[in-house]
Amino acid sequence: MIVSIVGIGLLGGSLALSLREKYPKMTILGVDKSVVHQKIAVAKGIVDRVVTLDEAIELSELVVLATPVDMITTILTEVLDKIPAGRTVIDFGSTKEQICAVANTHPKRDQFVAVHPMAGTENSGPGAAFRELLPGQHCIICDREKSRADSVALVEALLRDIGMKIHYMTPAEHDLHLAYVSHLSHVSSFALGLTVLEKEKDEKAIFRMAGTGFSSTVRLAKSSPQMWAPIFNQNKANVSRALGDYIEYLKKFKAAIDSEELDSSLEYMTRANDIRRILDGIEKK
Amino acid sequence: MIVSIVGIGLLGGSLALSLREKYPKMTILGVDKSVVHQKIAVAKGIVDRVVTLDEAIELSELVVLATPVDMITTILTEVLDKIPAGRTVIDFGSTKEQICAVANTHPKRDQFVAVHPMAGTENSGPGAAFRELLPGQHCIICDREKSRADSVALVEALLRDIGMKIHYMTPAEHDLHLAYVSHLSHVSSFALGLTVLEKEKDEKAIFRMAGTGFSSTVRLAKSSPQMWAPIFNQNKANVSRALGDYIEYLKKFKAAIDSEELDSSLEYMTRANDIRRILDGIEKK
Repeated sequence: MIVSIVGIGLLGGSLALSLREKYPKMTILGVDKSVVHQKIAVAKGIVDRVVTLDEAIELSELVVLATPVDMITTILTEVLDKIPAGRTVIDFGSTKEQICAVANTHPKRDQFVAVHPMAGTENSGPGAAFRELLPGQHCIICDREKSRADSVALVEALLRDIGMKIHYMTPAEHDLHLAYVSHLSHVSSFALGLTVLEKEKDEKAIFRMAGTGFSSTVRLAKSSPQMWAPIFNQNKANVSRALGDYIEYLKKFKAAIDSEELDSSLEYMTRANDIRRILDGIEKK
Repeated sequence: MIVSIVGIGLLGGSLALSLREKYPKMTILGVDKSVVHQKIAVAKGIVDRVVTLDEAIELSELVVLATPVDMITTILTEVLDKIPAGRTVIDFGSTKEQICAVANTHPKRDQFVAVHPMAGTENSGPGAAFRELLPGQHCIICDREKSRADSVALVEALLRDIGMKIHYMTPAEHDLHLAYVSHLSHVSSFALGLTVLEKEKDEKAIFRMAGTGFSSTVRLAKSSPQMWAPIFNQNKANVSRALGDYIEYLKKFKAAIDSEELDSSLEYMTRANDIRRILDGIEKK
């Protein structure tokens, strides 16, 4: 079987490394506009060789679109236009409504499966890819009933084989949920990084005292702008609402601090402590 | 030598465990208003025995105030009133201006050393204490010149012996810096927890997709409200300013997302990426 990875980054590269381990005879082709990524992907053994998008579509049983989401919506139509009958294309985008909307207008919609593997780090590119990223993690498939049964069966078999746990939801559910449990965390971290870096201009030694609590909350500010700008754009309505909610809570908290309403501060924090229940669940996953 | 820990929590308990390892003959006494904490502290071998505050002051070469900061400002005067000549009291508070202001009004100011060990986790109480918490971490001493030389020498010797790296600054510098690199991260996390927990009321399955990025940014929301409410209160002006800066960046980011100004989003994130330089430094510490 030949599988192509379009966009050989953290996610696409890690998928390839997981597949290689399970299927030593699988041929994995790579498509990437960055020559550096191409070279690293071959040198690291992520892909057998680099091909053009047209070659990938022509040769592969399965084409995996693992680029930034704006690129996915741009090339998905072209891939579906050219894909031979019986073959499958999936995407790995962190948004699903716009990508599925593009797919839904295409006569070959049923050869597409919308997939989101819930895994990542703040690093990007094929150099950051590692075999252990996806196994054990959750994976969302959206609008499963719109894809042909054979395509779904192939995709689910591969994902389960590399150890992913599959869940189903609509694109709208997916994008709403992700806004709160992923996209908001990223905006929060980016803004925190900006705030403290701005202060550093006046107070050079400010980071001398930064410790693990700070690094934990600001870690995601290292994430790739090129990946995240299109995600925020495609999930604009949900991210904007989540951010609005967040800003309101921060304002309330600030008001409680400003007016020394310790009871309000205590109540906010005690309610927030309930997050322990959630985090224990995540760690047990 | 006899040392007393007043407030046998994460920080005070971890100090005691580090001291025990270095000084097997040291006697460590504990003062805590919680009977549960008293019992755990004795059972865990953190303290040799539990005493009253008066006994601790009478018996100890060194009294360590490791309670929440509102309690430190409340009892510091009493401790200085009662402390015999030649003995030393230090605090471990996460704020320094108000605590040092209280000390500065006291005739025995020079028997007090203002100390902030830069370490912690989101957990609290003597059960969370562990010997490895303080070694290797930074420790700030404020207004060193206002303390008697013998007290400073004793405190620095103990802190260095357990592996802490000592820095000096004024209380005002300390509180400003901490607002940005610690206190703000905590408010940010508490508010993030509140935002998502509120959404969970309508969307029960929302956390199914939460992963490591989310848990990293929201981890500090597990922190103790009883510890943090007085910190925010004592460092109100700095925390409020930092929070105000943060809210402004979030609003700008939201505006860029709402109006689909991808260039602005990209620019904010690219600037925030510079945090990598800082985080690499923290990890190397």
